[in-house]
Amino acid sequence: MTVRSQFFHADEGDAVAVENETGKSRVLLVCEHASKTLPARYGDLGLAEDVLSSHIAWDPGALAVARLLSEKLDAALVFQRFSRLIYDCNRPPESASAMPVASEIYNIPGNADLDEAERFLRTAALYVPFHEAVSSLVEKRKILGIESVIVTIHSFTPVYHGRVREVEIGILHDRDSRLADAMLADREAASFKVERNEPYGPEDGVTHTLRLHALPEGLLNVMIEVRNDLIADEAGQRAAADYLGESLERALASIGD
Amino acid sequence: MTVRSQFFHADEGDAVAVENETGKSRVLLVCEHASKTLPARYGDLGLAEDVLSSHIAWDPGALAVARLLSEKLDAALVFQRFSRLIYDCNRPPESASAMPVASEIYNIPGNADLDEAERFLRTAALYVPFHEAVSSLVEKRKILGIESVIVTIHSFTPVYHGRVREVEIGILHDRDSRLADAMLADREAASFKVERNEPYGPEDGVTHTLRLHALPEGLLNVMIEVRNDLIADEAGQRAAADYLGESLERALASIGD
Repeated sequence: MTVRSQFFHADEGDAVAVENETGKSRVLLVCEHASKTLPARYGDLGLAEDVLSSHIAWDPGALAVARLLSEKLDAALVFQRFSRLIYDCNRPPESASAMPVASEIYNIPGNADLDEAERFLRTAALYVPFHEAVSSLVEKRKILGIESVIVTIHSFTPVYHGRVREVEIGILHDRDSRLADAMLADREAASFKVERNEPYGPEDGVTHTLRLHALPEGLLNVMIEVRNDLIADEAGQRAAADYLGESLERALASIGD
Repeated sequence: MTVRSQFFHADEGDAVAVENETGKSRVLLVCEHASKTLPARYGDLGLAEDVLSSHIAWDPGALAVARLLSEKLDAALVFQRFSRLIYDCNRPPESASAMPVASEIYNIPGNADLDEAERFLRTAALYVPFHEAVSSLVEKRKILGIESVIVTIHSFTPVYHGRVREVEIGILHDRDSRLADAMLADREAASFKVERNEPYGPEDGVTHTLRLHALPEGLLNVMIEVRNDLIADEAGQRAAADYLGESLERALASIGD
């Protein structure tokens, strides 16, 4: 009996999903905020339905774009099956936003005053297995001779704290900007408004997954943010995935690594 | 392939050991600081041999006392097989002392500036499996009708920052003091100098294991600290275990729970 088996109801499954695991591409897609599903034990966290469907619970459209990219590139995809409201897998346990008590303009009643036991449960059931899955896939591929390129897929809200965001696609990086630089090199020709480290950047603590899986090993990496109003339907998701897939392929070819 | 299998060399075994797992006693012994062994990947952390054998690396004598208690009470025992210098399993990941950069008068060079990837590795390989093992044993025993009594076994150094400590045995508790109160009730007759919440207490953040496994479920619990000069040899370990075993049994009988 593991903590995970105590944490999840029998029919809820596990924290992590891996799709196209044997995909041939060097690209390894990661989607930390793929789902708005709450584990049954948490009820509604004291939040209204519209809030539970909003960007504070997940990155709307991100999983759909990631799946289209997975197909287009023949790339493996790892995603979290539960909401960032319970544990934000792009944050370490010591971060206040790993189990947020507030997000944008909303308080999250079910996250107030979490005790050490509850923090342990969430860390053990959601965070550790997620990054173990990524880490183990990177390692397996390495043994097969594939040096992974870590690409994380996110979406952001067009209006944040009342401010409209003009940027449409953000290409984010931490201290290793090789892949981001190459993707940004031809952005003038893009049909999207593409910016570097927008609408936020590494100084906001958003590059945890890159820091865990890419930087220590020197793997090429990038974090991609798409404005979620552009990927609310399949046509938009396809347009974004087409642009990103071609941009990634051109960038990797230009690096010639 | 798990993080643990990447973390440990093939002949190092796993983080956690369980002894006398089917012991009949309600008492479940936990020893977080049982070992001074460093996983091979860490070398000597930049520390001298005498420091690596000191109380900053482990609780000398604690495992021996815990094993004698396990035998005496027929109690299950869970202990950590690696040094607290790498991860102190009695601290949550957000605590600065979980992966300490300094301890008492020593700096720990190998723990300076740990990045997020290294913190994740230690959390996933040492901390989470340890508390999963305790949690899973509590749960298994509950199914068998045994309501566990959580008893953690520690030792402390007789001289700390140059100050001599007079206390010989500390009976520590968090907000649930039932078992500690009962153990302290007859301390006048003890051949040891026994004190409540000495040489430190819950305000120092030392009751993490109790907070994880006992307080949420309302399980009886206590943290026991023995001054390590008294348990440096087998005679001393036996004397301490005899006193503690009898005190625990009397206390549990008096609570009649």
